Amino acid sequence: MMPPLELLDFLRKEDGFIIATHMNPDGDGLGSAIALSMSLQGFGKKTVLLCKDPVPHQYRFLPWQEKFITLEQFTVRSSRITDFRNLILIDCNDIDRITTDKTQLSAISYQLSAVIDHHESERPFGNIRWVVPDSAATGLMIYRLIKELGIKLTSDMAVNLYAAIAVDTGNFRYENTTSGVLRVASDLIEAGAKPHVIYRWLFEAWSEGRFDLFMRVLNTLEREDGTAIIKVTRRMFEETSTSPDDTEHFVEFPRIMKDVQVSVLFREIDDTHYKISLRSKDDINVARIAEAFGGGGHKNAAGCRIKADFETAKSQLLSLLRRNVS
Amino acid sequence: MMPPLELLDFLRKEDGFIIATHMNPDGDGLGSAIALSMSLQGFGKKTVLLCKDPVPHQYRFLPWQEKFITLEQFTVRSSRITDFRNLILIDCNDIDRITTDKTQLSAISYQLSAVIDHHESERPFGNIRWVVPDSAATGLMIYRLIKELGIKLTSDMAVNLYAAIAVDTGNFRYENTTSGVLRVASDLIEAGAKPHVIYRWLFEAWSEGRFDLFMRVLNTLEREDGTAIIKVTRRMFEETSTSPDDTEHFVEFPRIMKDVQVSVLFREIDDTHYKISLRSKDDINVARIAEAFGGGGHKNAAGCRIKADFETAKSQLLSLLRRNVS
Repeated sequence: MMPPLELLDFLRKEDGFIIATHMNPDGDGLGSAIALSMSLQGFGKKTVLLCKDPVPHQYRFLPWQEKFITLEQFTVRSSRITDFRNLILIDCNDIDRITTDKTQLSAISYQLSAVIDHHESERPFGNIRWVVPDSAATGLMIYRLIKELGIKLTSDMAVNLYAAIAVDTGNFRYENTTSGVLRVASDLIEAGAKPHVIYRWLFEAWSEGRFDLFMRVLNTLEREDGTAIIKVTRRMFEETSTSPDDTEHFVEFPRIMKDVQVSVLFREIDDTHYKISLRSKDDINVARIAEAFGGGGHKNAAGCRIKADFETAKSQLLSLLRRNVS
Repeated sequence: MMPPLELLDFLRKEDGFIIATHMNPDGDGLGSAIALSMSLQGFGKKTVLLCKDPVPHQYRFLPWQEKFITLEQFTVRSSRITDFRNLILIDCNDIDRITTDKTQLSAISYQLSAVIDHHESERPFGNIRWVVPDSAATGLMIYRLIKELGIKLTSDMAVNLYAAIAVDTGNFRYENTTSGVLRVASDLIEAGAKPHVIYRWLFEAWSEGRFDLFMRVLNTLEREDGTAIIKVTRRMFEETSTSPDDTEHFVEFPRIMKDVQVSVLFREIDDTHYKISLRSKDDINVARIAEAFGGGGHKNAAGCRIKADFETAKSQLLSLLRRNVS
């Protein structure tokens, strides 16, 4: 997994980098963007970290996370940051993943663009593209890039990259956990990352309200063949003083049952609109299911929306699953 | 972490090894014992794998787990296995950890004994002792031993050792997860261990009944300051067709809350007798608490019994916690 020479050249020769990750950011996007930004600044380059949304609570321990500016802040300041003429997309490979708001997008002016990502791509964007779907995390690619650029890996970079990798491998439990992944993680610990501290921030920093929400959601569990369905409603959020962010990882939980092959979380947007997260085991491709509803994702983790009441949405999804899985 | 020369000599020169792990066996004890047995047999030595209790369900995927014989089977056959004159204790360092039944113990005859363990020790047992409390798992010690003996690491050994390490590090999330631990795990993947398959067996092979039990247990949650208390009763086991084995890992779950420093599971033996598991974060030493009730364990994971009704037992424990923690 070697970074292309033109990417190395681009980073070495250019200056003024807007480093942006996707909306609804996750640990891999945030940690990777920060580590790249740190590396380039160590090189004497100017960088700005950009994300449409604020950094979610569980990532507030990442060194430099406070340097992220939102698209709104960026728009206000954009007249003052005209010397940032290079855009780098991290953990996504199309400009549309930055925001769906065309006005905001147009505020980002750049001359050259690069993409560093591990998602499979459909629409090519960027003058320089480094997309490695086989990589478990974008963080692994940034690690490699830092090595190739000959930059010293600092403890702060290591924490960001370790978090990036931990998030995208489910703390080393998903199928993408290879010997190479653990070798890099081992190196990051050597450089200063503390696994148990990072784990606690990422996966064990639940509020009491979130725990309460989790119990309510699990109590909605329905099973049909190998599919487990759980549901979260607006009322549950109100009653537990929580928000949709708090449902992160909930959908993964029912997979703990041996006989559950597919786990589905329905999140109520309104009575006839549900946001759906899907997780599967082994060769069951839920991306295909999500795509049928206009969504997408990876083979074992995907999402979509269905505009229908819960019972209708559920039966549509189950019938599609039955046809595709069996 | 080098094995003592006298241990290497012992394994090289002797033959006929009884390799025994502690009662209520866990993945580290079982996987380590099996990997050692495979190594010695590869050396042309005779070995027998011994454990008081049958191998629990979640460990039935371990290659060679079916070779374990229980103490009862051993006692029956002991006249035929008199040529096994060397005893090796794995993942424990006192003969009393094999069984509390003196009659059964006396059936194990041996001339030399060795101990390979990572628990802190009180009573010295064994002619050769290799006890490394700093080691995250006994599996790591067996890995080192295999390297030192110059034995080829097979895929079957790798699965056993990876499982051993995964169990004792909570799949690389506990404080004992060092860069060295991940380097060994990386090597074991290289040799054939599949992280997601092993993870699923160890942590995601719950029956529907177990999931149901989990929900009932979590619904008993009480919080007092930084302590979370959950309870499992005999009635819950009956109603969900489960057994105490099914409560493994339950006590760890409430730690997912940021403000929970100590998590306690009360398991009802009868109305006035509870088996108690304790888990803590950071520097809170629950071994000290458990010892006060005649139990023991590690700093962050310990256990004991209290002979009292639930409310009394709970208030005794809480008052001791309050005095020790604050």
